[in-house]
Order: sequence, then structure tokens, then C-alpha cells
Amino acid sequence: MANYQHILIAADFSEHNHAVMQRAKELAASHQAKLSICHIVEDFPIADFAYEPMISIDIDMRDALVDSGKKQLSELAKTLAISEQNQLLELGSPSYDIVRLADENKVDLIIVGSHGRHGIKMLLGSTANSVLHHAKCDVLAVKLPEE
Amino acid sequence: MANYQHILIAADFSEHNHAVMQRAKELAASHQAKLSICHIVEDFPIADFAYEPMISIDIDMRDALVDSGKKQLSELAKTLAISEQNQLLELGSPSYDIVRLADENKVDLIIVGSHGRHGIKMLLGSTANSVLHHAKCDVLAVKLPEE
Repeated sequence: MANYQHILIAADFSEHNHAVMQRAKELAASHQAKLSICHIVEDFPIADFAYEPMISIDIDMRDALVDSGKKQLSELAKTLAISEQNQLLELGSPSYDIVRLADENKVDLIIVGSHGRHGIKMLLGSTANSVLHHAKCDVLAVKLPEE
Repeated sequence: MANYQHILIAADFSEHNHAVMQRAKELAASHQAKLSICHIVEDFPIADFAYEPMISIDIDMRDALVDSGKKQLSELAKTLAISEQNQLLELGSPSYDIVRLADENKVDLIIVGSHGRHGIKMLLGSTANSVLHHAKCDVLAVKLPEE
């Protein structure tokens, strides 16, 4: 069977991201695949509609989130020697934009962490489910340990 | 990172199962992992409640489905040289029983086919989603071609 050519890590900066990164490293090596990493900064609308829409703060906060995300992504990418052009950071919806980035970059395997199903993690876990549901390529969900 | 030790193929006998089998073969070889294959015969209640419960026909039909499933599973397993003791066939609910079998057999990677999202396939595709949601181990969803 054909090797994977381009593997995309969907990083979420959780403390358990290490397991996802290591599995990606191992698969990229055994398949001699190109390795990219993406992170989607969730785009919440930030406004207080009881007053005026707070556009300027909104934009400033988003810029700050994107800058902080880029820094974290760059540090993670460094551990796997992923070059800057293969680090993809966007503001948007994780479940939608991971799949879109995979499409646009001709990715044939997305590797995503899969959280447990309790409390806040139930929401986080749904990214893996949604990516699986919409992806046009293979998806490896790496089970992350429960806290 | 530690290799996968025991990989379980969740087979559904669709014509595209080949892609799932080949990926499983390749990963089992590169990880030197034990390879098992399972198929769950969906347990629909078969009864006509306007009359008496049709228990005997019910049991006969289920036996026939299980026998036919075992035969198909055995033929699939043969192509990957999976021994009889690593062929697991059960009557039940695919999304529940694949995860249970994986647990019971200390599987660390489940490989399942992932169908598109149109028509009847939307229902079939949900097995992969449900397995991902409930599995206590990694899950690789192999994208199957649209018909």
C-alpha cells in the first residue's frame, strides 16, 4: 500500500500533546512523509451587545491570541524540526479549518489528539470526531490520557 | 515512541474493505504488532408483534447471519494470514462491541473504514465516529472512496 506522503498534526497545546507529536514523528519517519503542524485559534465573537460592539478590543484580543498561538506552535514545531512554512496557524473553527487546511495542502493523514468524554473534555474531544466526520483523508486519533 | 502491540481491524465486508486491510497489514508489519480482525453482525430485533413473537425464525435467521459472517471473516482474515483465534465475530452493536472487544483483547490501535456522508453511508460512517468517541485506545479511520 502507498505510504502516506503528507501528515498534518492538529495541535491543541494541551499538556498531553506530546503523545500526538511523538506518534506523528514516528509515522512520518516510517513513511518518509512530509510533516506539517497546524493550530486553529478558536474565533469566539468577543463583544458586549448591551453597549456598543467592542470592535477595537475584539481585534486586539484576536491579534494577541494569534501571536501567542504562533509562538507556541513555533516551539512545538521546533521539537520535530518542522520548518516555518509547514507551520499553519489560523483563526477560525478547529473542526472546519483543520479539514480545510488538510485539503488545501494535499494532506493524506491528519493526526489529532482524542480526549476523554468527561466535563470540559467532552467539548474538546468533539474536534477529533468532527475532523473524522468531515475529512477527505485518513485520520489517526491518538488517545490522550485522562487527567 | 512505543510501537503498537496489538492492532484490531474492524471489518465491515464492504467492497472497499481492501484499503482498510492493506493499511492494517502495512502498520502491523512496521510495528511488528499482533493483528486481529473483528466483525460485528448487527443484532436487529426480528419479530412481528402483530402476531406472536417469532422466536424460532428469529434465532434461525441470526444463526444464518452469524454463519455467513464467520465465513466472510475467515476469507478476509486468510488474505492477511490472521489465524482463527484472532478472528472475532459477534452478534451485537458495532459501535459498542468493537470498543469492548478492543478492551478485552488489550488492543492499542483500532483500524476502521470511514465512509462518506451521503445517503445510507451517513449511517455506516457513524460506526467510525462512535468507535472514536468511545475507544480507550488510538483509532485510525481509513477514508474509503465514494461510490
